[in-house]
Amino acid sequence: MNHTPALSDTDDVLTPRELKRIHAWWRAANYLSVGQIYLMDNPLLREPLLPEHVKPRLLGHWGTTPGLNFIYAHLNRAIIKRDLEMMYVMGPGHGGPGPVAAGWLEGTYSETYPNISQDLEGMKRLFKQFSFPGGIPSHVAPETPGSIHEGGELGYSLSHAYGAAFDNPDLIVAAVVGDGEAETGPLAASWHSNKFMNPARDGAVLPILHLNGYKIANPTILARMDRDELDALLRGYGHTPYYVEGKDPEQMHQDFARTLDVCLDEIREIRRRAREDGQIERPRWPMLVLRSPKGWTGPAEVDGKKVEGSWRSHQVPFSAARENESHRQILETWLRSYRPEELFDEAGVPVEDIRTLHPTGPRRMSATPHANGGVLLRDLRMPDFRDYAVQVNEPGTGAVEATRVLGQMLRDVMAANMDNFRVFAPDENNSNRLAAVLEATDRTWNAHTVPEDDHLAPDGRLMEILSEHTCQGWLEGYLLTGRHGFFSCYEAFIHVVDSMFNQHAKWLDTSNGIPWRRPVASLNYLLTSHVWRQDHNGFSHQDPGFIDHVINKKSEVIRVYLPPDANTLLSVADHCLRSRQYVNVIVAGKQPQMQYLGMADAIVHCTKGIGIWDWASTDTDDEPDVVMGCAGDVPTMETLAAVEILRSRFPDLSIRVVNVVDLLRLQDEANNPHGLADREFDALFTTDKPVIFAYHGYPWLIHRLTYRRTNHTNFHVHGYKEEGTTTTPFDMCVLNQIDRFNLTIDVIDRVPRLKDISAHVREELKNKLIEHRQYIRTYGEDMPDIRNWQWTAAPGAADQPHA
Amino acid sequence: MNHTPALSDTDDVLTPRELKRIHAWWRAANYLSVGQIYLMDNPLLREPLLPEHVKPRLLGHWGTTPGLNFIYAHLNRAIIKRDLEMMYVMGPGHGGPGPVAAGWLEGTYSETYPNISQDLEGMKRLFKQFSFPGGIPSHVAPETPGSIHEGGELGYSLSHAYGAAFDNPDLIVAAVVGDGEAETGPLAASWHSNKFMNPARDGAVLPILHLNGYKIANPTILARMDRDELDALLRGYGHTPYYVEGKDPEQMHQDFARTLDVCLDEIREIRRRAREDGQIERPRWPMLVLRSPKGWTGPAEVDGKKVEGSWRSHQVPFSAARENESHRQILETWLRSYRPEELFDEAGVPVEDIRTLHPTGPRRMSATPHANGGVLLRDLRMPDFRDYAVQVNEPGTGAVEATRVLGQMLRDVMAANMDNFRVFAPDENNSNRLAAVLEATDRTWNAHTVPEDDHLAPDGRLMEILSEHTCQGWLEGYLLTGRHGFFSCYEAFIHVVDSMFNQHAKWLDTSNGIPWRRPVASLNYLLTSHVWRQDHNGFSHQDPGFIDHVINKKSEVIRVYLPPDANTLLSVADHCLRSRQYVNVIVAGKQPQMQYLGMADAIVHCTKGIGIWDWASTDTDDEPDVVMGCAGDVPTMETLAAVEILRSRFPDLSIRVVNVVDLLRLQDEANNPHGLADREFDALFTTDKPVIFAYHGYPWLIHRLTYRRTNHTNFHVHGYKEEGTTTTPFDMCVLNQIDRFNLTIDVIDRVPRLKDISAHVREELKNKLIEHRQYIRTYGEDMPDIRNWQWTAAPGAADQPHA
Repeated sequence: MNHTPALSDTDDVLTPRELKRIHAWWRAANYLSVGQIYLMDNPLLREPLLPEHVKPRLLGHWGTTPGLNFIYAHLNRAIIKRDLEMMYVMGPGHGGPGPVAAGWLEGTYSETYPNISQDLEGMKRLFKQFSFPGGIPSHVAPETPGSIHEGGELGYSLSHAYGAAFDNPDLIVAAVVGDGEAETGPLAASWHSNKFMNPARDGAVLPILHLNGYKIANPTILARMDRDELDALLRGYGHTPYYVEGKDPEQMHQDFARTLDVCLDEIREIRRRAREDGQIERPRWPMLVLRSPKGWTGPAEVDGKKVEGSWRSHQVPFSAARENESHRQILETWLRSYRPEELFDEAGVPVEDIRTLHPTGPRRMSATPHANGGVLLRDLRMPDFRDYAVQVNEPGTGAVEATRVLGQMLRDVMAANMDNFRVFAPDENNSNRLAAVLEATDRTWNAHTVPEDDHLAPDGRLMEILSEHTCQGWLEGYLLTGRHGFFSCYEAFIHVVDSMFNQHAKWLDTSNGIPWRRPVASLNYLLTSHVWRQDHNGFSHQDPGFIDHVINKKSEVIRVYLPPDANTLLSVADHCLRSRQYVNVIVAGKQPQMQYLGMADAIVHCTKGIGIWDWASTDTDDEPDVVMGCAGDVPTMETLAAVEILRSRFPDLSIRVVNVVDLLRLQDEANNPHGLADREFDALFTTDKPVIFAYHGYPWLIHRLTYRRTNHTNFHVHGYKEEGTTTTPFDMCVLNQIDRFNLTIDVIDRVPRLKDISAHVREELKNKLIEHRQYIRTYGEDMPDIRNWQWTAAPGAADQPHA
Repeated sequence: MNHTPALSDTDDVLTPRELKRIHAWWRAANYLSVGQIYLMDNPLLREPLLPEHVKPRLLGHWGTTPGLNFIYAHLNRAIIKRDLEMMYVMGPGHGGPGPVAAGWLEGTYSETYPNISQDLEGMKRLFKQFSFPGGIPSHVAPETPGSIHEGGELGYSLSHAYGAAFDNPDLIVAAVVGDGEAETGPLAASWHSNKFMNPARDGAVLPILHLNGYKIANPTILARMDRDELDALLRGYGHTPYYVEGKDPEQMHQDFARTLDVCLDEIREIRRRAREDGQIERPRWPMLVLRSPKGWTGPAEVDGKKVEGSWRSHQVPFSAARENESHRQILETWLRSYRPEELFDEAGVPVEDIRTLHPTGPRRMSATPHANGGVLLRDLRMPDFRDYAVQVNEPGTGAVEATRVLGQMLRDVMAANMDNFRVFAPDENNSNRLAAVLEATDRTWNAHTVPEDDHLAPDGRLMEILSEHTCQGWLEGYLLTGRHGFFSCYEAFIHVVDSMFNQHAKWLDTSNGIPWRRPVASLNYLLTSHVWRQDHNGFSHQDPGFIDHVINKKSEVIRVYLPPDANTLLSVADHCLRSRQYVNVIVAGKQPQMQYLGMADAIVHCTKGIGIWDWASTDTDDEPDVVMGCAGDVPTMETLAAVEILRSRFPDLSIRVVNVVDLLRLQDEANNPHGLADREFDALFTTDKPVIFAYHGYPWLIHRLTYRRTNHTNFHVHGYKEEGTTTTPFDMCVLNQIDRFNLTIDVIDRVPRLKDISAHVREELKNKLIEHRQYIRTYGEDMPDIRNWQWTAAPGAADQPHA
């Protein structure tokens, strides 16, 4: 195994004065970090440390913080020296005190939060607010200037970093990968992101693997592998690794500065080759490995147990500093070891040498506009979605692949926004019928190709990797740095990123309360290849529960749309692509489906989000006998088919069809700003008539949304009940009793006046179900009259008036 | 980069006759695979292929299948030659036709499903049933003999394989890793599982990376990296890779046979060194890389487009074989290319040479008992959980870390079951207060150690890696091969494995309908470090939604428990550890909490799952004025504190406290076999009194569970409403209005007779909330009377009778 030739470690790149200053900056950042974790008063120890100066609840993570600060100091040196545009993504973002300290030293913190001034009083407040009620979180968070990466859940730093670097040719994203974080699946997968980077067009990511040695309680795998294995692994990921290892600060400063220079030189050369020589071959990007003690510069030992260099320094290295005199003494000694009197002047202001050792203005990593993407966000240039409209002569006819129609619009959105829009899919773009996008761009790909390959190019903008995690992480990074995107995914497998969605939704929710954070483009999901048409892949591919997961988050940041056909899908997608600060979930099938609404009607319907379909209803001005609610393409079709059966068997039955596109309109205003007022809801669903509701997902969700509504007790919801296998499309409906026959039977059973006159129809429908089952087991496909069914308008139905 | 020295490729290890036979077996498996995908009649082409012989819906995945069959054939050779105990895990399990074909050739299929006999009629049925209504799924599934790994969702093959190998010293698990699958996060993380293998005690995993070249539509990353990078990556993962590459069958048979021999020799030697020489150093386990064309042996071209060796062969290589004469001709030519007349006799039985080219009995991979773990499952030797009981002198007093008490029991479960029980945690075991387990065993670790390390050993049984995915995958593999386990996790981050849970729950549900699959031990989750006590880590760590996710699955396979204290936790955990075929979710805090029930009472309470707490109630035989429901430790405490406030202010108010341990008891019997009968529910919650319900998670869930209950409209649920940050424990309750003051105010507002007499109390409580907010912002911790609050029994309360 041939290692990178060691750089001569006698080459001091820092002058003595540079070394002294950079070390002082690091000491200052470390001092401020410890202060945040422990102190609520006496910030510069100008009086002896007393119990009441120590916070009663000690919360925070020290272990990773000195490493984060160390890197920050050196990145700053490089930014100044090379005039770089740089951004800092911290995988071990639980080390929140670090970037907060850096932001304060750079002045950004006081500019952003004037109350936290850059003086003694400000320092006191800086310390107290950390992990304190009414203050700031213990991790890197939306509140932290310069951050796009919440530090609470591990695994997403590299994919976020790449997302930030795409289409930002001048940007270098320094991404610290924690060695604990590196054990997670999402992080492990994201190393291969470099196969999707184009050095001519994109920025660069400089991974810095921080071998901190320990996690909460265990050593890390990467820190305990043989060196040849680690080196092989990182080269296998496509990088040229450079190592900085040790604990002596002076040596480490020289080593890190020199090695960082090597890495940045290589990045510059990679860029030059790509941009000047036109070299398109994928480079082996440099990366850094920093091996340093966990809790570096912290107390070596507490109560006879090793702390620095041990898992014991992960959080608060000792927790009784308020109650315990000896612990308090350790704390004071520790703090004084940074010699704060040399770092801050009488007023508590960082001394000149420190105050000037950072870039200025937006070059400061704590002030980069890329980390507050909303300030850079430009509106998408949008084509007129009506231009892609499908002609609808009669509602409930035709056979249109809705997502294929959407693909045409996305193609033109792509073509008009070739610098700030990307489409993401886990190898499913074409399967999801969005292939038209490839008419405007290629798939991003910077690894080897062969002639048989289909639309691969380094400057492609369709990003496909078989990792929902990586797609999601890239997209989040791309959005949070001020661009736009669209993510299509098989419905069942979007659950792979449930937890990532959680964190993004929480980020948006928190950001809504932070005035300086400008709104970013929404995260748009198209969930297709959905439960009702995964009949071919079977049970494992059938799960519509992402909606349930999503709506537990704040209603201010999430929306769910179930457009029943192509024109409504176009209208919804146009709305979502223009929106800000939401996670939009669009669920739409890719299989040929009937079309219901012409574009004008579709726009009206989607704007209201819910409405009566007069043309499908048989009710007049009076209240209907029954309301048939539906949400989702397949449930809508089955509902209409049920209406047709009912219409033919009970011509005077008064049926109202209500279709729901915007799911959260069902919720009451009190729970959701998008919810219908009770009055409006009652006008649609009546206050006392049976409502037979066919819903795309798990039926209980409709109950959860409507439980406060007047007529809720009369809601009877059909949906997916975890019945499924490889079978026919219609059989999927039958298995879950959301098919036309079961819906019709439910109406018969719920409408009192049908009770005595419907026995024969009920019998007929039950026989239809038996016949269906026998037919498919023999012939392997649905009966022709079901396969080919289309809606037939009732005479004069469309003319019936409605409010 | 030093590659593995190439083996001499002139060394033919297969005699001509062996070669001929193994190739015939492969042809037979491939023939049967194509037949399954395409045919519903005329299985051996004894008449010309007609449209009606071809299935109307062509569903299945051809591309990966010939590779799976190729490997199967060679593994069989090795099993026979070396008398191995082997199991086959197929990452690309969408190639379902392959293992079904193999199972049929081995006779297992007909033994398992007598209707699918090993003759012409059976072959016809074998073909027709595949992806056919009433038949079998298109992927590897519970229906497939020999499988523990559903092929629908990618990424879990390696972790499943390791789970199967742990504590199975004689077993070799051959794990095919798809090159598409390898891009997923869970798979990428799971390579490091070899750091947790003990060759002396555990079996072996032989990863076979199948470089099939393409995914659905894109090339795969691993197939398009430079060879030196791929080699480095696999060595970095800790393996010694051996390559077999090509497409000429004869050469490939020789190469694969020879290389497999090398790998199995190495495994034997590794075992020998570990078991005879006592060598404990982690070995570099061998692995295979098979590079072969996607859709190998399939049609080279269809309609002028390349198919074999292209993404076009991923699913059904051409789909119009029923309608299109020329496609049908291609199909017939393809099928005949395997020369079925040489492979099957007149009766459709595989010819002698094929029929005997597999191991016998349980040595057949399709018949290994390890893949039907229930047949190997032994009951855990369980200590008496009552021995760990916490003494409770007065209910609602004390300060017990419930999970620490549980840890003592788990320690003894571990000690008594050192060969078939493991505990899993993503680096959180001690954080979750289960450290006592380390008194019985160590943490599994086979990488380097240093003296400072805490309880690491190759034969440890506590499995900690910072990857929820890997923990989950290991545990699933361990359970499905007939052992027991326990998984503790931070509540918020269990969402990382939402999708894996889905697949496991679906596996259990399907297995329940398959008589030959014997029940396996339940998958037991302890979710702790929960939302109400992640006040220190803040918003990112606060999400109780896994419960919502879980209960969308079939109620026959999931259970959710919210024990409020240590004794109830012991009782619940004992029950879960003894159970079969469930996913049990236990939510319990790790922080010091009051204790409510002595062990005798705890057992009664947990057995019922829900019940009135007489000692906390003030109602008598009459119906109460209000019911206070509670589920979860913190909500229970706040409910009791509210009762105490109410009792003191309104001494004659009749309050009934109902505590819920078994959450699904709330659901009605119609929806859930564990649900309370309506009569019982009404007896607890009345039919018309206000119910103020404090729930651990998202409040809507309680509405979703109870919407059919008589008194549902009077349910007012308090729970987590996505309000949270780094703050005090009590403030978390206040932010979400689940605290004692808000609960009390809600009672006041809902009980009619309090309306006119309660204004001053309401005012007092509102002031308490303001006072609280001011206090914490000043002092950083909760007010002493809240921090130190304990329940005070009302005089005589415990004596009140109840039904």
